[in-house]
Amino acid sequence: MIMVGTQATLIGMDTDTADKTPVTLLGLGDMGTALARAWRAAGHPLTVWNRTPQKAGPLAEEGARVAATQTEAVASADGPVILCLLDDASVDEVLDGADLFGKDLVNLTTSTPAQARRRARWAEKRGARLLDGGIMAVPPMIGRPETGGYILYSGDRALFERHRELLEVPAGAKFVGEDAGHAALHDIALLSAMTGMFAGITHAFALVHEEKDLDRAELASLLVEWLGAMAGSAHEIADQLASGDYTEGVTSNLAMMTAGNDTLLASAEDQSVDPRLLTPYMELMSRRVAQGHGDEGLAGLVTLIRRE
Amino acid sequence: MIMVGTQATLIGMDTDTADKTPVTLLGLGDMGTALARAWRAAGHPLTVWNRTPQKAGPLAEEGARVAATQTEAVASADGPVILCLLDDASVDEVLDGADLFGKDLVNLTTSTPAQARRRARWAEKRGARLLDGGIMAVPPMIGRPETGGYILYSGDRALFERHRELLEVPAGAKFVGEDAGHAALHDIALLSAMTGMFAGITHAFALVHEEKDLDRAELASLLVEWLGAMAGSAHEIADQLASGDYTEGVTSNLAMMTAGNDTLLASAEDQSVDPRLLTPYMELMSRRVAQGHGDEGLAGLVTLIRRE
Ligand SMILES: NC(=O)c1ccc[n+]([C@@H]2O[C@H](COP(=O)([O-])OP(=O)(O)OC[C@H]3O[C@@H](n4cnc5c(N)ncnc54)[C@H](OP(=O)(O)O)[C@@H]3O)[C@@H](O)[C@H]2O)c1
Ligand SMILES: NC(=O)c1ccc[n+]([C@@H]2O[C@H](COP(=O)([O-])OP(=O)(O)OC[C@H]3O[C@@H](n4cnc5c(N)ncnc54)[C@H](OP(=O)(O)O)[C@@H]3O)[C@@H](O)[C@H]2O)c1
Repeated sequence: MIMVGTQATLIGMDTDTADKTPVTLLGLGDMGTALARAWRAAGHPLTVWNRTPQKAGPLAEEGARVAATQTEAVASADGPVILCLLDDASVDEVLDGADLFGKDLVNLTTSTPAQARRRARWAEKRGARLLDGGIMAVPPMIGRPETGGYILYSGDRALFERHRELLEVPAGAKFVGEDAGHAALHDIALLSAMTGMFAGITHAFALVHEEKDLDRAELASLLVEWLGAMAGSAHEIADQLASGDYTEGVTSNLAMMTAGNDTLLASAEDQSVDPRLLTPYMELMSRRVAQGHGDEGLAGLVTLIRRE
Repeated sequence: MIMVGTQATLIGMDTDTADKTPVTLLGLGDMGTALARAWRAAGHPLTVWNRTPQKAGPLAEEGARVAATQTEAVASADGPVILCLLDDASVDEVLDGADLFGKDLVNLTTSTPAQARRRARWAEKRGARLLDGGIMAVPPMIGRPETGGYILYSGDRALFERHRELLEVPAGAKFVGEDAGHAALHDIALLSAMTGMFAGITHAFALVHEEKDLDRAELASLLVEWLGAMAGSAHEIADQLASGDYTEGVTSNLAMMTAGNDTLLASAEDQSVDPRLLTPYMELMSRRVAQGHGDEGLAGLVTLIRRE
């Protein structure tokens, strides 16, 4: 009997759009516009709204329906309502008057983990389901799976599973937990780690700044290869944190690394580089060694920057 | 005629060892011992010396010749003399009395770029050729090419080419320039960048420290993938430094990244993490934006940590 329905769908309807879940999207900045185009290209019926209505013009020409108000957009939504606004405060401004009862909300607006958790409670009070998303991509990567971008999701797992196909359209989709704050937390953890890596790369290029006959493109290639290989230490740290034994599987211990830091600092001095991007971490290493943990790997440094 | 000699070699001699260049190795710590085993395994005749003679015992049983003194080891060397000692000062202590005239020295002792340059002048005065090496591997990776370790070399290019096969035995060998300081400089640039990345990873794990139901192994996998992809920014920086146009090929500019830093800092605060590992770099970004360069990529930050 199910087969009949399926066949009817295949025969009688436009498979390009009519079997695709409709999407309602609030926010047409750079990212929102890129998302809108990806869903249109995949054949999803699309309703859009933006505070500054002019930005919806091109999408209307490409076949999107433009809602007159955000309240109307939400009220008429048959599928998920996607939010891609500037920040958490703008979500309040846009949705405070809307009736959200029974709606599926997917918030792709960047938030802190705490904001995402508050937003989940806020949605629950209004009778809505919520998925929070953290976009690990820039707009030119949206709709181009080969670029490797993805969106982290957390919160309502059933909502994620129900709309998974649709959520995978703009970029890869990874569900990282039912705690609504966990997508933001993973997002921020990845961006924070990247910030540290960029600081290290900046120091590396500063070291060679006056070396006229040093091939910077080759240094860049060596950096990419080396950092890619050494990033694997994250697994060593995760394993040590899980077991509580910070000497487990250590390839290079803190005592050895601390001794090496002296060479890094002397070289920075010789090359006229201020080592301020590296010294806070080196100080943690020295402190942990002074506490008698020179035989450990890096896991023990994690607690030294916890405030409790 | 050359063929005759070659055939004679092929027919009349033990190809496993007799056609391999002999290696003389001073220093049998963890790294020196690993190097010694790799050359023995590859069939190179090996002479070793170590300050504490006991450490040469096992290698002697494995077929290495043990020299009575470092002076005798160097005097009898037919091929390159490899140094793998603790630090630059120990090279002076070991070699000050030795006659180095006409010798090929390969110094794998960790040095700063300035020490490596001084060592090249020191060798030249004594009538020796010098290659400096920086080992991007730990002892368990030596002799196991599949682990991806390698040794950076700089200095005498002819010496590198003459002994390339032998130099490739313990790990991959990469020649990075005729300036004797450039192997150490690349070594230190890679280790410095890694230190920054480790700081970032440490911050990332600190953010999730109290999250009981967050899968740290999955976070580690996401970190490895994300950092591997984002390390490619090193090419963007190298290109910008080469052209002098720091807005070239920018995917995410400093103004956008600085705005994102506020979210990273607010999240660190919420998650009880002291942001000290990231703030020095964020301060550079803010400073550059305040100087009116918000449209640039990361290259402009390099000069902000130069001391001149
Ligand atoms: N762009 C990226 O590379 C990127 C990457 C990852 C995540 N994200 C996240 O995606 C979200 C959108 O980014 P974007 O690049 O599209 O930003 P954007 O180009 O600056 O657009 C901001 C959007 O938010 C709207 N908005 C701002 N304040 C509002 C308010 N008070 N009420 C109603 N609407 C308001 C703007 O409407 P108007 O048009 O009326 O101003 C616009 O649609 C942000 O949370 C951002 O962090 C962006
Ligand atoms: N191990 C690694 O993971 C690694 C990685 C990359 C680079 N490296 C570099 O490789 C070099 C050797 O490292 P290692 O791990 O083998 O160190 P190690 O195990 O501490 O061995 C040090 C070696 O130096 C000798 N030595 C020290 N001071 C001396 C002196 N004044 N006179 C004569 N000999 C002296 C020691 O002789 P005794 O036996 O008599 O003490 C020993 O052979 C270092 O420069 C290190 O930075 C090591």
